[in-house]
Amino acid sequence: MSETWLNKVNWSDDGLVPAIAQAADSGEILMVAWMDRDALQRTVETGEAVYWSRSRKKLWHKGEESGHVQKVREIRLDCDEDVILLKVEQHGGIACHTGRKSCFFQKLENGKWKSVEPVLKDPAEIYKK
Amino acid sequence: MSETWLNKVNWSDDGLVPAIAQAADSGEILMVAWMDRDALQRTVETGEAVYWSRSRKKLWHKGEESGHVQKVREIRLDCDEDVILLKVEQHGGIACHTGRKSCFFQKLENGKWKSVEPVLKDPAEIYKK
Repeated sequence: MSETWLNKVNWSDDGLVPAIAQAADSGEILMVAWMDRDALQRTVETGEAVYWSRSRKKLWHKGEESGHVQKVREIRLDCDEDVILLKVEQHGGIACHTGRKSCFFQKLENGKWKSVEPVLKDPAEIYKK
Repeated sequence: MSETWLNKVNWSDDGLVPAIAQAADSGEILMVAWMDRDALQRTVETGEAVYWSRSRKKLWHKGEESGHVQKVREIRLDCDEDVILLKVEQHGGIACHTGRKSCFFQKLENGKWKSVEPVLKDPAEIYKK
């Protein structure tokens, strides 16, 4: 099967590109992670966001532990073809491992980073097995 | 002067982090570029987005050639402290060097990347000097 669309992505030397997950409804930016070729292919095939975990060095089906999967509604590529944008429905309304909706909860105010988004669920509750 | 807020950013080995520019009004993602420490500091000091150009290997005051500067309304940092989010007012309504509002104009449809955003201004007009 031809996968020219995967070849069009300008993968870095280490085979990755950043991928932004944006809430399809509100436009809020939820998180940024990394994708390799397999991650992007599986994302398209399954309709759910799959990333490459740089710390664990393996594919990471977002939500596999937390249940906070991301249903992918649209996939975009930028002009340099080295950044992916996913428009997603965030299951559970929580994208961040800290239990917040978005990972971008720290805001620069008067020379300090201040947490400005509430923790919606205790991470100990999210990740218990 | 203490700049502990700059030290809180988890700069990569090459001293960079990705920075997302998002339209403060619509929530649309306009572009992703890179910042080093100086770029972020100048962004805060000037109130306009300054990036690090990896191709030209120098600071890049967005809009310095095109006039399409970005007035920064808010700066966010993610949970891993390695991605910056800027909420901006995009001067001229064009962030992309192709003359489009957003750099993310290619949408994956049926296994092909399709340009789905209009060119608002001919790049030859934007960059003429």
